[in-house]
Amino acid sequence: MSSLEHIYRYIDDHFDDHLERVRTLVRQPSISGEGVGMAETAAMVAGLIAEAGGSAEIVPTAGWPVVYGEINVGAAKTLLVYGMYDVQPVAGEKWSVPDPFGGHLLEMSNLGLCLVNRGVANQKGPLASFFNTLQAFRAVGQPYPVNLKFMIEGEEELGSRHLPDFVAQNRERLKADYAFFAHFSQDLTGKVIMYLGVKGILFLELIARGGDWGGPTSRGIHGSNAVWLHSPTWVLVHALASMLTPDQKHVLIDGFYDDIVPPSAEDEALLERLITTFTPETELIRDDARRFKYDLTGVPLLRKYLYQPQLNIDGIISGYTGEGTKTLLPHEARAKIDIRMVPNMRPERMLQLVKDHLARHGYADKIEVVVHDGYPPGKAGLSANPAAQAMLKAYRDLGFEPEIWPHLAGSAPFYLFTETLGIPVVMGGLGQGGRQHSPDEYATVDGIRMCEKSIAAFLLNLADQS
Amino acid sequence: MSSLEHIYRYIDDHFDDHLERVRTLVRQPSISGEGVGMAETAAMVAGLIAEAGGSAEIVPTAGWPVVYGEINVGAAKTLLVYGMYDVQPVAGEKWSVPDPFGGHLLEMSNLGLCLVNRGVANQKGPLASFFNTLQAFRAVGQPYPVNLKFMIEGEEELGSRHLPDFVAQNRERLKADYAFFAHFSQDLTGKVIMYLGVKGILFLELIARGGDWGGPTSRGIHGSNAVWLHSPTWVLVHALASMLTPDQKHVLIDGFYDDIVPPSAEDEALLERLITTFTPETELIRDDARRFKYDLTGVPLLRKYLYQPQLNIDGIISGYTGEGTKTLLPHEARAKIDIRMVPNMRPERMLQLVKDHLARHGYADKIEVVVHDGYPPGKAGLSANPAAQAMLKAYRDLGFEPEIWPHLAGSAPFYLFTETLGIPVVMGGLGQGGRQHSPDEYATVDGIRMCEKSIAAFLLNLADQS
Repeated sequence: MSSLEHIYRYIDDHFDDHLERVRTLVRQPSISGEGVGMAETAAMVAGLIAEAGGSAEIVPTAGWPVVYGEINVGAAKTLLVYGMYDVQPVAGEKWSVPDPFGGHLLEMSNLGLCLVNRGVANQKGPLASFFNTLQAFRAVGQPYPVNLKFMIEGEEELGSRHLPDFVAQNRERLKADYAFFAHFSQDLTGKVIMYLGVKGILFLELIARGGDWGGPTSRGIHGSNAVWLHSPTWVLVHALASMLTPDQKHVLIDGFYDDIVPPSAEDEALLERLITTFTPETELIRDDARRFKYDLTGVPLLRKYLYQPQLNIDGIISGYTGEGTKTLLPHEARAKIDIRMVPNMRPERMLQLVKDHLARHGYADKIEVVVHDGYPPGKAGLSANPAAQAMLKAYRDLGFEPEIWPHLAGSAPFYLFTETLGIPVVMGGLGQGGRQHSPDEYATVDGIRMCEKSIAAFLLNLADQS
Repeated sequence: MSSLEHIYRYIDDHFDDHLERVRTLVRQPSISGEGVGMAETAAMVAGLIAEAGGSAEIVPTAGWPVVYGEINVGAAKTLLVYGMYDVQPVAGEKWSVPDPFGGHLLEMSNLGLCLVNRGVANQKGPLASFFNTLQAFRAVGQPYPVNLKFMIEGEEELGSRHLPDFVAQNRERLKADYAFFAHFSQDLTGKVIMYLGVKGILFLELIARGGDWGGPTSRGIHGSNAVWLHSPTWVLVHALASMLTPDQKHVLIDGFYDDIVPPSAEDEALLERLITTFTPETELIRDDARRFKYDLTGVPLLRKYLYQPQLNIDGIISGYTGEGTKTLLPHEARAKIDIRMVPNMRPERMLQLVKDHLARHGYADKIEVVVHDGYPPGKAGLSANPAAQAMLKAYRDLGFEPEIWPHLAGSAPFYLFTETLGIPVVMGGLGQGGRQHSPDEYATVDGIRMCEKSIAAFLLNLADQS
């Protein structure tokens, strides 16, 4: 038996224990947006690094701490493991399990037995799987094939606000040959999907308030006054409406599309290959929708999805939203919006365009723009990326031919690797998980096992390449 | 001393007791929108009628009960006292007193000692004052000058949903010569204001949901999908924006202004007199605003305020509205809106116009229209209205020359008197109260005393006219 086969067998034989280790990590709440359980979770992650034979440090930032770790086995190459220990809030959500942090196992239709828990897909499940894989290496007496560094942040769900500072201040000790983000890569049908990058994001809050320009200034007043007093709620509604066409296909902010570049030759080739396996129907099922915004399919649909930026309303609130009626002229209205940026777009420029738009439409004195977070896109590539090649080979070793995407429609601060640290990065791992940011976030139990095996293969492939 | 002077003196001598009786009524929560304390409050009101020597009945409706009562003293004329025992919600509001239902006394700047409590202005304070006045009549041995009937509803804040049914079903026993709604009529400066009618209202909820047309159908999904999936939140924003110009001055719903009629000759004369005492600055202070929507003053400003209908957003909610960030494409968005209707407008027609507007703009399959309540305007008039004449004389007897408004900008179901029962109606009473529907709703303590006296004079004037 090869050393990889030994590790596979160990994982199979000890999977009940491994699954319990995953459940232990996901049961610990770590809601960065609400400040729930953050210190406890950071300590658990530091403990996992120490257990894997490393040195671990909980490094304070201006926000939640980063867990940093090192395991130097004297190997030729070093892998920087990036991860996140924070999760999304669950307030107001309806889950099928009694407790979103209960570590509940649930038989889900078409998926089999699943671990249903906030953060199990994004990203504590894959993170725990990584440490389980290291445990298997140690148990079978197989040295780690590469040196490891860990940078596990607690603010990914807050837009990784302080990670850029951390990276800038720790550039020396973050030196590595490549970076890795563990991720359940299989879709609902079991197909493996590989994303070679991410979009950028700018997350803003627009707050309209009464003031010198008009409207009630410090409290909601009787609704009958709307006939002669301005409403900040209408201001916000009109300001938002001015930014997007009613068919929701075209953003009306001047310059919004100016920085877009056409897909690279490698991306074009990937798109052509992608449409041979890409199934729009699977995407619709995953997203609980019945049709796309565009009457397109194939490469044209994918071009919209991957190479077109968008403006989204994540949330809006103003006035009386309880039961029954209350006639009110509100003094304030708030909208959380995000702009998803495609390659070559920059958050600082988008922010300026939004502000310019509001000013040009007469909203400068009526609407405050609060920046919650923002970072540019990150492209990792494939042919010149040894980490991506090692992951691709791991999939193939385990019998999976992945569907390769030029990048993800979602966002992560990969620019810190591709731009700031200047090293190749890959995200991957077998396994099925979903409903990130939504109720009933899940990972299939069997997928967790496969994730561990794929990470073992990936680590060995990395060393083999060297 | 006249019998009126006896009553005045009794009120002065026993005002501490009377104030406690007001506090007792307002301390009892009665939030119809949330179903809090409704049965208890109905029983208290029935008790007050019984204590005044009447028969009282708590009459079930399809919603909260109506408290009906009769006191027949063999007088020539009968007054129907209309009132409300329900109040607005307080959830999420910040009050200066520890408890919005604490019956707290607070020294307020420019107002003196005030009773600060939800409902003390709208309308439990005036209602309790009315019963205190009756107590004074009895205590000094003065028979009530008119027979009394009471119709005290528990759904005024819900748009008096079931009062029309109650009136239709009880037309016989509601027979009276005139109707009265007790009300603190003095503004911040102490000026007495008399309103000879009310606007109508149509209160709707617009609910945009994902469906066959697009968008997520049953749960919020990851925000990155907004690039290729529709958003119900954007649908609601665009639908609302399509209904009003960005300057908030003109409603864009076809036919919205068609039914408006010019002010009557009596109204025109009242407007001309009104501008000699009307102070826009006082209105702005009351409404916590710095300027009106229109650069107008005098009669032109009042014409906008009183004779122009408006569309207001009372509340809007969708998606993630908590702390921090959560990128979400919501599956649902809701807005509560109201249309204030001026004389000759009808709620059923306005509802049709809103639905037609949504259909014409392509929202018929995307937005559900829920009717919360609606009733037409009610005009009571002055010269041909003996109840209004009796109240006007009461003010003058007590040394106040009122500022007379053709009607109120707010709404109440006065059409039930002016149209359905076909009797004159007046609302009035001395006293200062304010911040209805807002935090720190208040009534001045001295105003409660003056209210009681003015009601005594009103009742005696009514009988004198006959």
